[in-house]
Amino acid sequence: MQNFVFHNPTKIIFGRGTIPSIGPETILWGKKCLLLYGCGSIKKNGVYGQVFSSLKEAGLEIVEHGGVQTNPLLSHVKEGINKVKAHKIDVVVAVGGGSVLDSGKAVCAGSVVNHDVWKFFTGKKSIKSTLPMTAVLTLAASGSEMNSGMVITHDATREKFGFGHKLLFPKVSILDPEATFTVPMDYTAYGAVDAIAHVLEYYMTTKDPATPVQDRFIEGLIINAMDSCDRCLVNPRDYNARADLMWAATLALNGMTGAGLGRVGFPMHMIEHSLSALYDVPHGAGLSVIIPGWLRWHSIVDARKIIQLGSRIFNFELRGIEPTSNATVKILENWFTRINSPIRLAEFDIPPEDIPLIAENALRLAKIWRLDQYSRETIEGILTLCR
Amino acid sequence: MQNFVFHNPTKIIFGRGTIPSIGPETILWGKKCLLLYGCGSIKKNGVYGQVFSSLKEAGLEIVEHGGVQTNPLLSHVKEGINKVKAHKIDVVVAVGGGSVLDSGKAVCAGSVVNHDVWKFFTGKKSIKSTLPMTAVLTLAASGSEMNSGMVITHDATREKFGFGHKLLFPKVSILDPEATFTVPMDYTAYGAVDAIAHVLEYYMTTKDPATPVQDRFIEGLIINAMDSCDRCLVNPRDYNARADLMWAATLALNGMTGAGLGRVGFPMHMIEHSLSALYDVPHGAGLSVIIPGWLRWHSIVDARKIIQLGSRIFNFELRGIEPTSNATVKILENWFTRINSPIRLAEFDIPPEDIPLIAENALRLAKIWRLDQYSRETIEGILTLCR
Repeated sequence: MQNFVFHNPTKIIFGRGTIPSIGPETILWGKKCLLLYGCGSIKKNGVYGQVFSSLKEAGLEIVEHGGVQTNPLLSHVKEGINKVKAHKIDVVVAVGGGSVLDSGKAVCAGSVVNHDVWKFFTGKKSIKSTLPMTAVLTLAASGSEMNSGMVITHDATREKFGFGHKLLFPKVSILDPEATFTVPMDYTAYGAVDAIAHVLEYYMTTKDPATPVQDRFIEGLIINAMDSCDRCLVNPRDYNARADLMWAATLALNGMTGAGLGRVGFPMHMIEHSLSALYDVPHGAGLSVIIPGWLRWHSIVDARKIIQLGSRIFNFELRGIEPTSNATVKILENWFTRINSPIRLAEFDIPPEDIPLIAENALRLAKIWRLDQYSRETIEGILTLCR
Repeated sequence: MQNFVFHNPTKIIFGRGTIPSIGPETILWGKKCLLLYGCGSIKKNGVYGQVFSSLKEAGLEIVEHGGVQTNPLLSHVKEGINKVKAHKIDVVVAVGGGSVLDSGKAVCAGSVVNHDVWKFFTGKKSIKSTLPMTAVLTLAASGSEMNSGMVITHDATREKFGFGHKLLFPKVSILDPEATFTVPMDYTAYGAVDAIAHVLEYYMTTKDPATPVQDRFIEGLIINAMDSCDRCLVNPRDYNARADLMWAATLALNGMTGAGLGRVGFPMHMIEHSLSALYDVPHGAGLSVIIPGWLRWHSIVDARKIIQLGSRIFNFELRGIEPTSNATVKILENWFTRINSPIRLAEFDIPPEDIPLIAENALRLAKIWRLDQYSRETIEGILTLCR
């Protein structure tokens, strides 16, 4: 295990009927809030109403900023920052999935500085302070509800960049599994894929010495993300399935799975970000295309962890399956297909001729994330395995 | 999953060479500290020197309070409280294992009130504020380094009572696995048993609906506690083994394993506390006597989780072992024996005639912990299975 600091101060309020605590929790941080949300699904499923009433009852003044899109845009973040400055907002309340929460974090960081918030993402400026953020989660996927990361897409350059800072942990996140009952089947599946991708990035960061505590934790989360996703797809209103998926996705990226691994690169995310940025595909859907290709590419260098994963979570020995990396990848791939998450670029109508363009975009992020072993040729090679 | 609030604000600094950060981390909380420690092992292994220099260099005034014993005593806590009051101490620095850290928490709670600190343990008073505590851990076992609980023994009544409050989380805990290189073999083993006992209490709190995310996490921790303990016993200076055991023990009781389980009773601890209190046996050693008996007793009512545990972590199917609860208990029991942790009351020279006396003591804690299903007869019955 490598040395590490683990410090996650986010308070999680989990369960049925917890959304009305957003008001009392938010008033602790200020009187005037920016209520940030997406494209209206929370108005249909009743979450908006619960949040609005609770904030009002707690005595908060509300300025709204709806319209956050999947693969949230810098321009929308900047509009939010302008509103915060114009209305002298004290606290941001983000209600939605990872896109909304990430936008909220960017607004929190950008509202206390006079320079372009994008400079945080390109490493030209560093965060010294932020506004506080509270959150209500409506999608099990990104883990943003209990971590300090955010991913935003630059409208003009189509760069989808991520950045993290310890001041970006939400002060409180409210996780009511019932708020995810109306998540459509496709986004439910993509959310599970996203959670699995997060822990796979850690799992595949093979270290010497090994990190067996983290390995077992991750294997358990993958088993549960797959199983609970299956149950959600059978019955979208299965509370326990939604709860298990939600908690597994949160734990997948709250710092616990990666503690002790040293520097972790997130190469699958690095490549996927280019798919989302260039073709606006849902992040989880892009990941289920990249994961099998990346694993096949990685297995040429080092197949051990991929075989370990399959042996432990897919019970190779018991099922008489020969323990190969390909067996692991194949089972994962089949599962992606079963939950209707794509596994090939062609399913997005992305032609092989676009691969150099995608690699070009990914390379920019590879440089910022210091993934030095990923040359243009390497990324193109991985993408070729995703055709 | 039941509704829950998870909020663990402790900062963990983990790894080789991290002890010198105690000074800079402590000075954030005040200028005058009470340096709390045990019976001198930290003076032999160099930890004391590192801590003292770091505190001094950071500019802290130090008042010492050594001599915390295994199964820490209320009288010693009270002496610490008196020192804090006399010297106007700002912050407690606890350096040691669970006994020292628990004593530190009790000093932190008792120093800001005028009544007897024991009233917190008997539920007669509730905590409103505390002094801050920082910690350096020297034993992988109790999890006290990242939780809000404490267990203290009343000298006169021989009651060993536990109590928790959210204000009792250490502000920071420094976990250097090298600080555990000199832990003797017996206490290394007892520490692993303690960690396993913590997660077993959660695991055996069978709930409907099930909590599969928590189950897998716990199973992974048990596998790792056993495996890393084995490696520590082979080579006490195996850094990775010490690191894995240390981190597994911390994760076993930091709130994560129990989140979503609702009220959890800790019945094995309830009975063990009486062994420690009456015969001053090491807590982990007492637990390895109680665990098999309690599991055998519980299996009469509900064997499902015990079988699940064995099937998953001991690979019953693959090894052709018939999946029974007794098979699980037997494997655990054999492992306790292999690591030289006792499995019968007789190994402590406690005669069967003492069982009513132990049950009498345990019953008092059962009442405070609201373990209503544990009558005197039930506890005696369980203890009979531990003879």
